Amino acid sequence: MTSSETAQNLSFVLEGIHKVKFEDRPIPALRNPHDVLINVKYTGICGSDVHYWEHGSIGQFIVKDPMVLGHESAGVITQVGSAVKTLKVGDRVAMEPGISCRRCEPCKAGKYNLCENMAFAATPPYDGTLAKYYVLPEDFCYKLPETLSLQEGALMEPLSVAVHIVRQARVTPGQSVVVFGAGPVGLLCCAVATAFGASKVIAVDIQEPRLEFAKEYATTSTFMPSKVAATENAERLRQENGLGAGADVAIDASGAEPSVHTGIHVLRNGGTYVQGGMGRSEIQFPIMAACSKELTLRGSFRYGSGDYKLAVELVSTGKVDVKKLITGTVKFEEAEHAFKEVKAGKGIKTLIAGIDE
Amino acid sequence: MTSSETAQNLSFVLEGIHKVKFEDRPIPALRNPHDVLINVKYTGICGSDVHYWEHGSIGQFIVKDPMVLGHESAGVITQVGSAVKTLKVGDRVAMEPGISCRRCEPCKAGKYNLCENMAFAATPPYDGTLAKYYVLPEDFCYKLPETLSLQEGALMEPLSVAVHIVRQARVTPGQSVVVFGAGPVGLLCCAVATAFGASKVIAVDIQEPRLEFAKEYATTSTFMPSKVAATENAERLRQENGLGAGADVAIDASGAEPSVHTGIHVLRNGGTYVQGGMGRSEIQFPIMAACSKELTLRGSFRYGSGDYKLAVELVSTGKVDVKKLITGTVKFEEAEHAFKEVKAGKGIKTLIAGIDE
Amino acid sequence: MTSSETAQNLSFVLEGIHKVKFEDRPIPALRNPHDVLINVKYTGICGSDVHYWEHGSIGQFIVKDPMVLGHESAGVITQVGSAVKTLKVGDRVAMEPGISCRRCEPCKAGKYNLCENMAFAATPPYDGTLAKYYVLPEDFCYKLPETLSLQEGALMEPLSVAVHIVRQARVTPGQSVVVFGAGPVGLLCCAVATAFGASKVIAVDIQEPRLEFAKEYATTSTFMPSKVAATENAERLRQENGLGAGADVAIDASGAEPSVHTGIHVLRNGGTYVQGGMGRSEIQFPIMAACSKELTLRGSFRYGSGDYKLAVELVSTGKVDVKKLITGTVKFEEAEHAFKEVKAGKGIKTLIAGIDE
Amino acid sequence: MTSSETAQNLSFVLEGIHKVKFEDRPIPALRNPHDVLINVKYTGICGSDVHYWEHGSIGQFIVKDPMVLGHESAGVITQVGSAVKTLKVGDRVAMEPGISCRRCEPCKAGKYNLCENMAFAATPPYDGTLAKYYVLPEDFCYKLPETLSLQEGALMEPLSVAVHIVRQARVTPGQSVVVFGAGPVGLLCCAVATAFGASKVIAVDIQEPRLEFAKEYATTSTFMPSKVAATENAERLRQENGLGAGADVAIDASGAEPSVHTGIHVLRNGGTYVQGGMGRSEIQFPIMAACSKELTLRGSFRYGSGDYKLAVELVSTGKVDVKKLITGTVKFEEAEHAFKEVKAGKGIKTLIAGIDE
Repeated sequence: MTSSETAQNLSFVLEGIHKVKFEDRPIPALRNPHDVLINVKYTGICGSDVHYWEHGSIGQFIVKDPMVLGHESAGVITQVGSAVKTLKVGDRVAMEPGISCRRCEPCKAGKYNLCENMAFAATPPYDGTLAKYYVLPEDFCYKLPETLSLQEGALMEPLSVAVHIVRQARVTPGQSVVVFGAGPVGLLCCAVATAFGASKVIAVDIQEPRLEFAKEYATTSTFMPSKVAATENAERLRQENGLGAGADVAIDASGAEPSVHTGIHVLRNGGTYVQGGMGRSEIQFPIMAACSKELTLRGSFRYGSGDYKLAVELVSTGKVDVKKLITGTVKFEEAEHAFKEVKAGKGIKTLIAGIDE
Repeated sequence: MTSSETAQNLSFVLEGIHKVKFEDRPIPALRNPHDVLINVKYTGICGSDVHYWEHGSIGQFIVKDPMVLGHESAGVITQVGSAVKTLKVGDRVAMEPGISCRRCEPCKAGKYNLCENMAFAATPPYDGTLAKYYVLPEDFCYKLPETLSLQEGALMEPLSVAVHIVRQARVTPGQSVVVFGAGPVGLLCCAVATAFGASKVIAVDIQEPRLEFAKEYATTSTFMPSKVAATENAERLRQENGLGAGADVAIDASGAEPSVHTGIHVLRNGGTYVQGGMGRSEIQFPIMAACSKELTLRGSFRYGSGDYKLAVELVSTGKVDVKKLITGTVKFEEAEHAFKEVKAGKGIKTLIAGIDE
Repeated sequence: MTSSETAQNLSFVLEGIHKVKFEDRPIPALRNPHDVLINVKYTGICGSDVHYWEHGSIGQFIVKDPMVLGHESAGVITQVGSAVKTLKVGDRVAMEPGISCRRCEPCKAGKYNLCENMAFAATPPYDGTLAKYYVLPEDFCYKLPETLSLQEGALMEPLSVAVHIVRQARVTPGQSVVVFGAGPVGLLCCAVATAFGASKVIAVDIQEPRLEFAKEYATTSTFMPSKVAATENAERLRQENGLGAGADVAIDASGAEPSVHTGIHVLRNGGTYVQGGMGRSEIQFPIMAACSKELTLRGSFRYGSGDYKLAVELVSTGKVDVKKLITGTVKFEEAEHAFKEVKAGKGIKTLIAGIDE
Repeated sequence: MTSSETAQNLSFVLEGIHKVKFEDRPIPALRNPHDVLINVKYTGICGSDVHYWEHGSIGQFIVKDPMVLGHESAGVITQVGSAVKTLKVGDRVAMEPGISCRRCEPCKAGKYNLCENMAFAATPPYDGTLAKYYVLPEDFCYKLPETLSLQEGALMEPLSVAVHIVRQARVTPGQSVVVFGAGPVGLLCCAVATAFGASKVIAVDIQEPRLEFAKEYATTSTFMPSKVAATENAERLRQENGLGAGADVAIDASGAEPSVHTGIHVLRNGGTYVQGGMGRSEIQFPIMAACSKELTLRGSFRYGSGDYKLAVELVSTGKVDVKKLITGTVKFEEAEHAFKEVKAGKGIKTLIAGIDE
């Protein structure tokens, strides 16, 4: 089937490992008066989408029933519930794709990303946004200023991930920040750390082309680790970048064990480490260095209060450039092809166009 | 040689692995007008003292020259410098044994335990407190209220370690705290967490006698791990103690890998883990659980601003009982015997009496 | 009309200044599947209730239409919505009387007490809890442990106010806390500060009987201000209580200008002041002292995330005693009489019994 | 007397109200091995200098003995103590003019600006920096990068004041900040808030020329208050600047009562207010608004840990421009004339050149 005019709500559905289909589903109804209906215009592909497509699961989350993929989207409002106040039909919005329950302890404590009942797009059993239409509560939609395109709007999702990571790191002006992994999220962490006033932002990666890109994008320098002990790489990082007693902040956006080790060792006493990247569930870890340097380590999971809002603000004020990361856009019908390209490591961020009304 | 009346400053000196001697050294001079001279009255033996005695080193710290051992001490002021205002000869004081430089960035930022130039007693090349006399700056001495004995004064050191750990954990009233390791520091962490208002304080250890003691000392319950996966022990911990979504705080005072794992897994989303105990420099670590639960992990290193003061306060207001932990006192001349007993795991905290003037 | 068996939902209604009536209203319906219906058992009278009764308004809040009074209540669940999971008919609960919108920025940031759309009981135009029945969402009900009576349950409201104030003050163990005003909230602030580990808790009031009560209730000392300058009272406070450079924390639960001044002046450099009491909208204020001592000042408004839960915890663990504050209980039919007594300053906390089913 | 070659240490000395003289004093000796001797090159005039010159006192600080004025200086190292490691003769440095005791509780807690024994330049009884030579400890000197002039170096003092204020306000990216008072410190607060990522920075002043300057300097808009109630000005501020529920942060750098009121009223619920400007010791204050909006208010006093370092960093990375504020430089011999000009409100920041060796 193709995206003909007769399609109600064409959706890109994962049925099993490497098994996807296009399915025309009913247009979803608003669940309550605070909801809006959105015609999805652009959707980025995330590593987690690709992981589900390849493996059918991520950790404890297993795709049992067919599930629509996609969660990095922007679109145009086509219907608003009776209680909606700040949005109207035609508004262009970035779509925050995880709906919290608003009633559990983490929700009421301001940590809704840790909600015990989260309904997150394209995380089983919840359908994702790679469909013609999607329903969200008003307060999970972020109106795009005129200066922002809908393509940029789709990038608000990975940018919010980076905003959350950098906030978890409590980056303040004048600090030195080392970011491990120069993929989309790592690069955006560099950009956000710069916007937060970091004086030194150093991207670390083992792929030369990624470092080449990073050199021109929101970093003060880049670093290619050698095949030596993490302590040696950390020492060279310090010396090449004038980090003195060590970096203030290390962010891992790679999930790789050697990055974690180098990150811990490159920090000064009292520094902060944030784990943003996903990798193996257990790794070897230099715990005594973390202890005796009295580091603070924090995980970072998705995004929460204020992150999407700040993401939009950072782009609209010109502090972060997300356009440079968009390296391709494919038609909705070519979604599977796009997955293959992302899997093959082509480009930085590929968008899938939506189906216009 | 013995502690005769002619002794100037008899000291217990480590010369090499398992090689100690008593040496009569000169009485140390005040270094500046802010210093005081103390006649050391009681000194506790710490695991680190025993480690130096057995191995001649701890990590990067290697005993090259003969070094006086000991750093958990209390004593009586015998001389005061001309600028000393709050202490006088005869005052009984707990002795904070690490002198910070007061000039480096961590010192000026209020993190003097992370001082780049710390002179810490019984850490090479600095002599410790197992001597008749010891010199300290006025502001590293804490006057004991009349209700506190000098023996209790010697316990202010491990209690300050526990205060620092519990502060790193940001324990607040009503929280649930799981402490791994029921040795002196672990037990004191339980006591301090209780004093900080924790509603549930659970001590975990693999030695039944330690748990028996813990049951009567500042805990709401105890837990003996089974030889199963850390996730299973964590699950049983949660169920037996009504921890619901997980504990608010986990403190490791054991340094053991299984404790670290159980600690991470027993925490709720957004919980806090503090590494207090020393162990192997690298261990296997469940990093993805820490990341996706968005935990905060902190190392804890010695003690800093306000810790000793609060330690004295907690004991003098009756909120923490350190007397129960003192299981023996030996004469200064029997110091080596005491080290052997501690090494053999006898008692909880053994004190070595000082040499009276 | 009296509370006969035929009454549906007898309510105590304020119609205008000093004009109240009993009205039999319909039993309210659950608004959504997360709601429960509660048979209100006890309700305390708060200064704000009395203020509405006397003046018909508080600041910008004006009683235009008849409004049920009361918001300090506990009761028994009589009906549960289909989505309710943790409560069942017959459960005894403390009732948190302000329902937040869960969707505005403050709500999602964990500050639901600052909700832009708060529906708060007995604040126009929302009816209060002085009725036979009241509807609340499940997550605003706090199950009372067996050891807590429903009378104590009604006290969870003012205790939550005090918990919020003490949390705003960031009271930590070992600190000195001066509380101005020894009415119900001030006394509860003393009790909570004690539970938070404060070493010195000093109650200040100008009424001797209040100080007499405070002396026996959760304070380490009391203070009667003289008719002298605030700086002089502050100086005497410091000297009589060994506060050295000043108190760590000052809490105003009086709303009186002289208390505010003395509170600012009694603090040490870097100390914390919290305004809990309501008073005149503008007062003379020693702003330069606050500036040059680099104080932190915070307002405290109602209660928010975790406050009610901790209130129940503090009482059920015996850390706070609220029973001592209950100085009288009247029948529902005598509600107006109770208002007159409270207005006249009789007793500490008067409860109005509810109407049994 | 003039600054002839024979002058040892010509100094600009305040003897009494409006009574100054040039005096040739001995070159000061290093007090300890950590000290350096500096040939002062430029000194800015601060409002406090002018206040001492006009009134002979500021609050409790009274000039009893002749006192050298000046504390906003930069110079060149001419001698270093034996323990000095990071500085050498010839280095150009910004001079932090307050020497803390390093031993009191605030010092050890990282709040050395609140030091109980602070020796602050040109605050009685301590001499200031308007002399040929001045002695400072190494760690209170900040080496200027090659790109920074000594004139800019003198501006590090007021910039550090602004850094401290903005840090007290905890300004984070995306926030809206209203700054009252567009004098040197207010303008620098605007610049620092911008560097900290504030999205909206609004300068408020009652002098049109100041607003004209501010318009071109680190603000997104400016505001001239009308002679109406503070609530009305606050309302217009909100509307003209799209502040919605209110500003996130208000900073007072004016010390004027109407500014304080407008600042409190322009804030959103939960916003932050910082008092940076000095004014009357007591003013009328809208305390109930601060309480019911649950604001955080903080004083800001001088500068502390990390402030000078960040000031140098902000200028050297081009994030803050201090050159634009330097509106004149006079010879050392014309110091008194310069005081008169500043008093008359001429220019923004006037520098007094030092005496070369």
